[in-house]
Amino acid sequence: MTRRRRVYEGKAKVLFEGPEPGTLVQYFKDDATAFNGEKKSTVTGKGVLNNRISEHLMMKLAEIGIQNHFIRRLNMREQLIKEVEIIPVEVIVRNIAAGSICKRLGISEGTPLPRPIIEYCFKSDELNDPLVSEEHITAFGWANPLELDDIMSQSLRVNDFLLGLFTGIGIRLVDFKLEFGRYYEADEMQIILADEISPDNCRLWDIATNKKLDKDRFRRDLGGVEDAYQEVARRLGIIPEGGPGDLQGTTAIQ
Amino acid sequence: MTRRRRVYEGKAKVLFEGPEPGTLVQYFKDDATAFNGEKKSTVTGKGVLNNRISEHLMMKLAEIGIQNHFIRRLNMREQLIKEVEIIPVEVIVRNIAAGSICKRLGISEGTPLPRPIIEYCFKSDELNDPLVSEEHITAFGWANPLELDDIMSQSLRVNDFLLGLFTGIGIRLVDFKLEFGRYYEADEMQIILADEISPDNCRLWDIATNKKLDKDRFRRDLGGVEDAYQEVARRLGIIPEGGPGDLQGTTAIQ
Ligand SMILES: Nc1ncnc2c1ncn2[C@@H]1O[C@H](COP(=O)(O)OP(=O)(O)O)[C@@H](O)[C@H]1O
Ligand SMILES: Nc1ncnc2c1ncn2[C@@H]1O[C@H](COP(=O)(O)OP(=O)(O)O)[C@@H](O)[C@H]1O
Ligand SMILES: [Mg+2]
Ligand SMILES: [Mg+2]
Repeated sequence: MTRRRRVYEGKAKVLFEGPEPGTLVQYFKDDATAFNGEKKSTVTGKGVLNNRISEHLMMKLAEIGIQNHFIRRLNMREQLIKEVEIIPVEVIVRNIAAGSICKRLGISEGTPLPRPIIEYCFKSDELNDPLVSEEHITAFGWANPLELDDIMSQSLRVNDFLLGLFTGIGIRLVDFKLEFGRYYEADEMQIILADEISPDNCRLWDIATNKKLDKDRFRRDLGGVEDAYQEVARRLGIIPEGGPGDLQGTTAIQ
Repeated sequence: MTRRRRVYEGKAKVLFEGPEPGTLVQYFKDDATAFNGEKKSTVTGKGVLNNRISEHLMMKLAEIGIQNHFIRRLNMREQLIKEVEIIPVEVIVRNIAAGSICKRLGISEGTPLPRPIIEYCFKSDELNDPLVSEEHITAFGWANPLELDDIMSQSLRVNDFLLGLFTGIGIRLVDFKLEFGRYYEADEMQIILADEISPDNCRLWDIATNKKLDKDRFRRDLGGVEDAYQEVARRLGIIPEGGPGDLQGTTAIQ
């Protein structure tokens, strides 16, 4: 492959210019960060697993009509995606209380919420991704009310579908984070799902044992991070029962 | 007056049983607190002034159809109010960035907001009144979506009216906090404005000089707290130009 222009390097992924206009290559690193970058490490094989898991989930979501940026996987660590104008709002969908909502609202971890709750955070590392409401989002023009309605209803559909999918493989979908973007094609604008869906941005608990199969293993130093991500991939049928094969994914960042 | 049952003692006010069922007596203390009670002091005359200022504003709001709890003033420090079931949500209306929004969203104090922004905080001293969104309010049943729509539109009307009123007396209404409650009468429920509207829960800046005429003088140790509250009362035409008269309001808490 020829030398590609690096468009953006984030905490977990790198974006390169894609082969055609309007496309990008999303490269999944093994870097793991938490608490807004304060805690940093690498988890061998994480990038390879997240690339596969996100591919799998985005493809399944496209099948039920949730448009998203995924085009095709290129190799172990890279996928071709549609370039979007990212809406600077993280959409968090919560089914069970865990993480920040527990302390903020005084709810103990594991409490089922009365209904799925959507939270929005302003995507800003400097400000520590502060919680915002629809008011802030529309007043500051990060998204307009119609876009936000669209984002909310898509997020609830994603939740319903993923709740089903994970229940089927013995996993409780506690919460997850989504990002959406504006995709422009032939004078038309569409809000589509972007970024990734993986154990990096979902809380996934084994239904039988409550074992955490997600990034909380890293955040809380529970160990077995890579094993947990592999377990999720295995249950999704992405990697064979026997073993994962090569997780080095040695494709260098070019 | 006969001995009355004390219903609730808060940080700035005391509620007593009223003379008739469905009424309460709201007593305004001189106690001032900030940062969720961490900072405490008394400001002589504050209770007397807030009693008068809140009376004035609530009466004016009733005239434009904003139903509220105010019935009549009883004496220097007390007013008779309708008892409501308080909705445990503080409604903050912001016209200009000041206070918590500045740090949270990285906006410098004094920046006009693109439009009035409504924020909700869950009324909980233990949790430090955390910011919440409509999602939390409706999911946890603090208010239902219809009630919340009502609260939002009433709050915007209050804002428009108070913006006008304060502009007329050379004061910029930067932001303020409201509380609403459910008022039950003859099998009917109505959401009405409750609590108080005073320099304790408004940010008021002199238009010409930007001088703060509100509780920020206390929060930030700027001095002249009582003078500032008096200035607001004077401009509202509540206390005579000459002097405020007796601000001791010696009616003991009974
Ligand atoms: N389809 C897309 N088009 C453009 N940008 C995208 C797309 N999908 C994801 N992104 C952005 O690419 C970055 C992915 O890298 P990541 O390491 O997650 O970054 P960050 O540290 O900012 O979260 C994110 O900033 C994300 O918003
Ligand atoms: N009309 C009303 N009926 C019942 N409760 C009210 C009414 N108006 C205000 N309240 C409540 O009375 C209390 C007023 O006292 P305050 O010192 O402000 O208390 P706090 O420290 O809880 O803010 C508040 O808790 C407020 O919610
Ligand atoms: Mg990211
Ligand atoms: Mg109060």
